[in-house]
Amino acid sequence: MTFERDNIRRMSGYVSGEQPDDARTIKLNTNENPYPPSSAVRDVLANIDPAALRRYPPATGAKFREIAARLHGLEIDNVIATRGGDELLRLVITTFVDPGQLIGVTDPTYSLYPVLAQVQDCPLKRVPLIDGWHLPADFTEQMNDAQVRLTLLVNPHAPSGQLLPIDTVRQLAGRLDSILLLDEAYIDFVDHPYDTIALVQDHENVIILRTLSKGYSLAGLRFGYGLGAASLIEPMLTKTRDSYNLDLISQLIAEAALSDQASARQSWQKVIAERGRLLLELEALGFAGKPSQTNFLLVTVPAGQYAEVLYSTLKKRHILVRYFASPGLEDKLRISVGTHDENTRLISTLREIL
Amino acid sequence: MTFERDNIRRMSGYVSGEQPDDARTIKLNTNENPYPPSSAVRDVLANIDPAALRRYPPATGAKFREIAARLHGLEIDNVIATRGGDELLRLVITTFVDPGQLIGVTDPTYSLYPVLAQVQDCPLKRVPLIDGWHLPADFTEQMNDAQVRLTLLVNPHAPSGQLLPIDTVRQLAGRLDSILLLDEAYIDFVDHPYDTIALVQDHENVIILRTLSKGYSLAGLRFGYGLGAASLIEPMLTKTRDSYNLDLISQLIAEAALSDQASARQSWQKVIAERGRLLLELEALGFAGKPSQTNFLLVTVPAGQYAEVLYSTLKKRHILVRYFASPGLEDKLRISVGTHDENTRLISTLREIL
Repeated sequence: MTFERDNIRRMSGYVSGEQPDDARTIKLNTNENPYPPSSAVRDVLANIDPAALRRYPPATGAKFREIAARLHGLEIDNVIATRGGDELLRLVITTFVDPGQLIGVTDPTYSLYPVLAQVQDCPLKRVPLIDGWHLPADFTEQMNDAQVRLTLLVNPHAPSGQLLPIDTVRQLAGRLDSILLLDEAYIDFVDHPYDTIALVQDHENVIILRTLSKGYSLAGLRFGYGLGAASLIEPMLTKTRDSYNLDLISQLIAEAALSDQASARQSWQKVIAERGRLLLELEALGFAGKPSQTNFLLVTVPAGQYAEVLYSTLKKRHILVRYFASPGLEDKLRISVGTHDENTRLISTLREIL
Repeated sequence: MTFERDNIRRMSGYVSGEQPDDARTIKLNTNENPYPPSSAVRDVLANIDPAALRRYPPATGAKFREIAARLHGLEIDNVIATRGGDELLRLVITTFVDPGQLIGVTDPTYSLYPVLAQVQDCPLKRVPLIDGWHLPADFTEQMNDAQVRLTLLVNPHAPSGQLLPIDTVRQLAGRLDSILLLDEAYIDFVDHPYDTIALVQDHENVIILRTLSKGYSLAGLRFGYGLGAASLIEPMLTKTRDSYNLDLISQLIAEAALSDQASARQSWQKVIAERGRLLLELEALGFAGKPSQTNFLLVTVPAGQYAEVLYSTLKKRHILVRYFASPGLEDKLRISVGTHDENTRLISTLREIL
């Protein structure tokens, strides 16, 4: 006997990257920031009164939302604080897409999107990227013709690390009939000025996803936020969000971390510098990849090598990278940019293996 | 223009109790535990390495689930850890109830249930409680005849504080065609041995909700858990749950708090003792209520008084209680049991007002 709904019974869950307990493992598989979070986090932890935990936390994270609004030049009504980007993605689907309506994605894309669509019993409109991970010229027409209700676009793109030209994003926002969710989980690692925030003010159909997981070294905290027109934010904030979705401690830490832009920026600069070096070193070993605007590289393994085998061999040597057994990705590995020492050990290990 | 789904546009969100910043306010409106959490919470906070936050947390809270399983004599597969009871309620609906299928509740009940049902676009089958907050004898038949898919039963009951006889709960589990979710948010305040855990082993349709918000003085942490047959837990754990739903810090604190049963029990005993005294004192002032098995009292205001006016007058004097403007509750106040001093101040303030 099963009580599961048909759509749930048919689906498989999201498979996250391995999280070994083992301290000696070099984790280059889940795109965590290799540097620690702001030193303000320690101060926050030291000043938490355990007795304060007996009360319910601020319901909507208003203080965090004010800080985020100020950072981006928006109003508090344009901001929703969520438990990681995951919660925002779920809320957008729950609030705006009826079961049976189409959700639009590129192929490939972030592997969580199809899972969330299945939970809501929504079919996908998948539009394959073309050579070099570009959007096809008729992307908007394909989405509009299919009457897609929500387009989920990770930009910079995962797993390729490529960034859309800002003009392309602006055109999508203006021409798509659907809501456009720009998943900017990796935006902090872009190496040149690039800002889509104005789209929130100009378009009533744009939601920008940000997370503290990567750029602020706080994947363990589960904190993200969404930016959008007040008309889009309001129903998520007041109706579909779990009441008290954010615990007190994570609110305090997130407020401090987002306020310390200097510390976060330092980690971005270090990641960007290491990313360049790592790609050069990998290319010297026969890997091929394009420069990335994220904190990971997607590289094609050298001729004669198998990506899955290489993944396993590295794992035996306590280095975790990500392998995707999906069309177009079978000959590639996704490698998070680690610290200088971690990247060096990856390269020297690969040199031994190859 | 609105992008909201029809069911979301039509609904109103959950209204939680007021959370004033004001330190002098006596908060007897949201059923928080008046005593602080386990002293182990302070130790956990002191030992958190901020650098550990840069990594994703344990995905399913396995260590907490082991502790909970051991506490209740179950297996880890019978346990899901969630962000408060709220997340469990949402997951149960998402996983087991199709839009359009019926969710069964008593009337009155916890005011969040209708909100969650509306988010999933599920109509409610409401069965009114009869005199003294009893279930009608044909409760099961009414639910089965209506083909209810999920019955949400808060026990001890909110807002009345009444506890169902254990035999009644056992009969419901055996006879209901639906899933039976027993919301035991207040179970820790029952003043005699009472244990429904065996139902999880005997019935494949029972899910028990527990929370650390009340019994463990951790409403600010957002941590709860569900107990049920592995066949019920598994799809929530692997498919419908947000990946990484629990942050690292709250997992560590919840593990420590649930392990410290002695400290929690002390707070339960103090609340139970104060609850008895508070009811006697309120009765002496002309209020009427039944003994409660929760950490709150539902009392009818004295003849000639209006509950809403009394609520407002108390609020002006910096004492918050809960007033519900709904049928059958308009002449009542729900008052959380505070500390000895808080309860004494409530009584002396009421004496001045009345």
